Amino acid sequence: MTVSAAPSLRPAPVLRPRVAEDLAARLARSAAATGAGRDLRTADVDDWLAQRARAHRFRVERVPLGRLDGWSFADGTGNLVHHTGRFFSVEGLSVTLGEGPVRSWQQPIIRQPEVGILGILAKEFDGVLHFLMQAKMEPGNRNVLQLSPTVQATRSNYSTVHRGAKVKYLEYFTGPRRGQVHADVLQSEHGSWFYRKANRNMLVEVGEDTEAPPDEDFCWLTLGQIGELLRRDNLVNMDARTVIACFPPVHSFPGALLTDAELQSWFTVERSRHDVDIRRIPLDEVEGWTRGEDVVEHTDGRYFRVVGVRVEAGNREVSRWDQPLLEPVGTGVTAFLYRRIGGIPHLLVHAKVEAGFLDTVELAPTVQANPGNWRHLPPEDRPPFLELALDPPAGRVRYAVVHSEEGGRFLNAESRYLFIETDDSQTPLDPPPGYQWATPGQLKALTAHGHYVNVQARTLLSCIDAGAVQL
Amino acid sequence: MTVSAAPSLRPAPVLRPRVAEDLAARLARSAAATGAGRDLRTADVDDWLAQRARAHRFRVERVPLGRLDGWSFADGTGNLVHHTGRFFSVEGLSVTLGEGPVRSWQQPIIRQPEVGILGILAKEFDGVLHFLMQAKMEPGNRNVLQLSPTVQATRSNYSTVHRGAKVKYLEYFTGPRRGQVHADVLQSEHGSWFYRKANRNMLVEVGEDTEAPPDEDFCWLTLGQIGELLRRDNLVNMDARTVIACFPPVHSFPGALLTDAELQSWFTVERSRHDVDIRRIPLDEVEGWTRGEDVVEHTDGRYFRVVGVRVEAGNREVSRWDQPLLEPVGTGVTAFLYRRIGGIPHLLVHAKVEAGFLDTVELAPTVQANPGNWRHLPPEDRPPFLELALDPPAGRVRYAVVHSEEGGRFLNAESRYLFIETDDSQTPLDPPPGYQWATPGQLKALTAHGHYVNVQARTLLSCIDAGAVQL
Repeated sequence: MTVSAAPSLRPAPVLRPRVAEDLAARLARSAAATGAGRDLRTADVDDWLAQRARAHRFRVERVPLGRLDGWSFADGTGNLVHHTGRFFSVEGLSVTLGEGPVRSWQQPIIRQPEVGILGILAKEFDGVLHFLMQAKMEPGNRNVLQLSPTVQATRSNYSTVHRGAKVKYLEYFTGPRRGQVHADVLQSEHGSWFYRKANRNMLVEVGEDTEAPPDEDFCWLTLGQIGELLRRDNLVNMDARTVIACFPPVHSFPGALLTDAELQSWFTVERSRHDVDIRRIPLDEVEGWTRGEDVVEHTDGRYFRVVGVRVEAGNREVSRWDQPLLEPVGTGVTAFLYRRIGGIPHLLVHAKVEAGFLDTVELAPTVQANPGNWRHLPPEDRPPFLELALDPPAGRVRYAVVHSEEGGRFLNAESRYLFIETDDSQTPLDPPPGYQWATPGQLKALTAHGHYVNVQARTLLSCIDAGAVQL
Repeated sequence: MTVSAAPSLRPAPVLRPRVAEDLAARLARSAAATGAGRDLRTADVDDWLAQRARAHRFRVERVPLGRLDGWSFADGTGNLVHHTGRFFSVEGLSVTLGEGPVRSWQQPIIRQPEVGILGILAKEFDGVLHFLMQAKMEPGNRNVLQLSPTVQATRSNYSTVHRGAKVKYLEYFTGPRRGQVHADVLQSEHGSWFYRKANRNMLVEVGEDTEAPPDEDFCWLTLGQIGELLRRDNLVNMDARTVIACFPPVHSFPGALLTDAELQSWFTVERSRHDVDIRRIPLDEVEGWTRGEDVVEHTDGRYFRVVGVRVEAGNREVSRWDQPLLEPVGTGVTAFLYRRIGGIPHLLVHAKVEAGFLDTVELAPTVQANPGNWRHLPPEDRPPFLELALDPPAGRVRYAVVHSEEGGRFLNAESRYLFIETDDSQTPLDPPPGYQWATPGQLKALTAHGHYVNVQARTLLSCIDAGAVQL
């Protein structure tokens, strides 16, 4: 026992349980609350979004890279940079792998060393947790406006670089706490397009007596309503999906084919076994890509282009700006193949090397590919299970929705997200090297930590907990 | 439910609990088993170690770096490298921090991109878990021989680079599983001396019917016996300590000042707030250090030297070799200041930037410093709490033992490890920036994942679970 040298007037601090015990039940209750929430019926969300779109001017037009205001190709490197040196840059990456059909390549990559905040504010209304979602316009979204987290801000946004309006509700996620933090974890984003990008994924709950200031671009929705909206194409944006994946677990999946320690051991082997050599290089030195005044593109037209846009917006921190965007060629396919094993759904995860990851591999969906990027290779060199995901057996698709990747950096970056039920003839219990079985509960436990579950797998996980899919 | 396309003869797989439920109790039983184990009384360990030391030839002599067999300063970079390109190299690092009294410096650093295995084999004898510990000689240990994990091997060790004898018991930790894995996690090592080094920390249990081949250099000890030995100077080596810290939790510490999510949120802020710029540079370009034919050293004699040794060994994979070692100047002090808060011990952890970390900061003990490296700075620029750790109040030191760092890379690298009980006048409940309160249970939960708890903090954690200290 501590015997204080001097008596203290401070009351003895009260310890708290390490994990809020009722949170899973409260999240489950919110997930079960479908059809209507405090602000809106789910059926009326479309009208609300259309109304918000009409309320704001938001125009996006393509502009050649060479004519982007404030951006230029730097002397010496050819890197595409902003004149302030902030925001992000497009540089080059040289990649060498120890195995696989394609063992070395060079590519442009977005470098954005700042850590941003993706935060959702939660509050109970009539005993049901609601989440404050934003109708947010992003230049890269095909439909411009999608449902986003309460706060979605780079450090440049919320510091003074933009010299624009302040980020709404930001004060709940920074500085002295105004609520109870339930999640706050650094997660990676697209490792093929970003160099070591990480954002904070945050869930903060405020008490019923806290009156968050009302704003017409924001709306309180239940987790169940968000689940309903996750069944719609291009509606819930990537930032919202990854934050929801980092919510504390809703469902418990008690048993598993592998113990948590065995799954971790498999992952440790996967993380250590790859010989990967990743070097940043000047954009000018990237082989196999051409830089014109309009775009940067692959000589065979594969993978993606770097293009420029000019944005005019009425409701943003800054009302007019130019920026580059990365525009993928074609639509991706992102699928978890799964089986019920002993009554519990198990997802076939892939320990996938992505060149931009901080640490070699993260857990990806079974299939995560852009089919067009593989057509030039013989079938045996294409990703395992790709054909199954492109042409799934009848009656086995439990979820198939097109979602967009982050509209602030990617233009029309769409992928078809799928859950496909399989059997032993397709996905054996002893999966091929680099693949393993994990329950949604095991993956959720790992999303409490960074650099385990990649952003595509997090999108699919968000669909499970929000009830968008029943496995 | 899965309806298989074809009937399978394979029996339905049985799910298992994700966490072995009785493991904590079994570890606690082993921690309570002090005084004697299956092979030895604790009091006889000294005799056994002395006998093993006599049984083997092991001679270490200093050799100038320029005369190390197989090693040379590479043309162009001056990096100290092995002619095979394997094992490790001594290169340079250039570091710039955004804050603190010393904001930029250059230094030599060990680069060893291989992932090694540190593994302890466990087995029950008469219902008590025992751990197979090795009497292992390392050239850098002041007393040469210390107690090490069952397996302590770099990839060079266990592949064919050494062209030597095979590593004993390695088969339990690689390839097809011969036991139940309870822990297998990549952990960092000394971030001031290693560039992004990581080793697998493994605990594997074999059944009572598994007969591990006997070997005179190995001995089955209980966790309680290891705890008794952790109270002795320079006896349990660093590799054993870090693996023990990664064992699943023995004690439960149910409540805490911060919830796990709040602790994680604090850590996320610490990990994101530092502006750190780390660049590998050639050893020849490191400023403030001189390279002679004998040693590489700091111009003011601080920090460490890089020196050479020649080793002759009778019981190792290779019986004779030369190698560089990093020899710190002076003895370090590594201390957890702690308080009982609401009856539960809380450790004051420090989110410490170390240049060699993969990701900016890890959780370190309250004090981790070599006092001699700070004497040239004014007192206000020295590390917080350093004076308290160097001159603790009477009667408040619960643990004070000198341990060595890894004897395969470091020469006479000793630090005094301490637990010091404090009160509000010394360690306020609102600690200074970069410091936070966490229970041992919270830190243990984080050692199940990599890059959270640094190797010095893991040494101190191992003392708690093994019962070497009562907080």
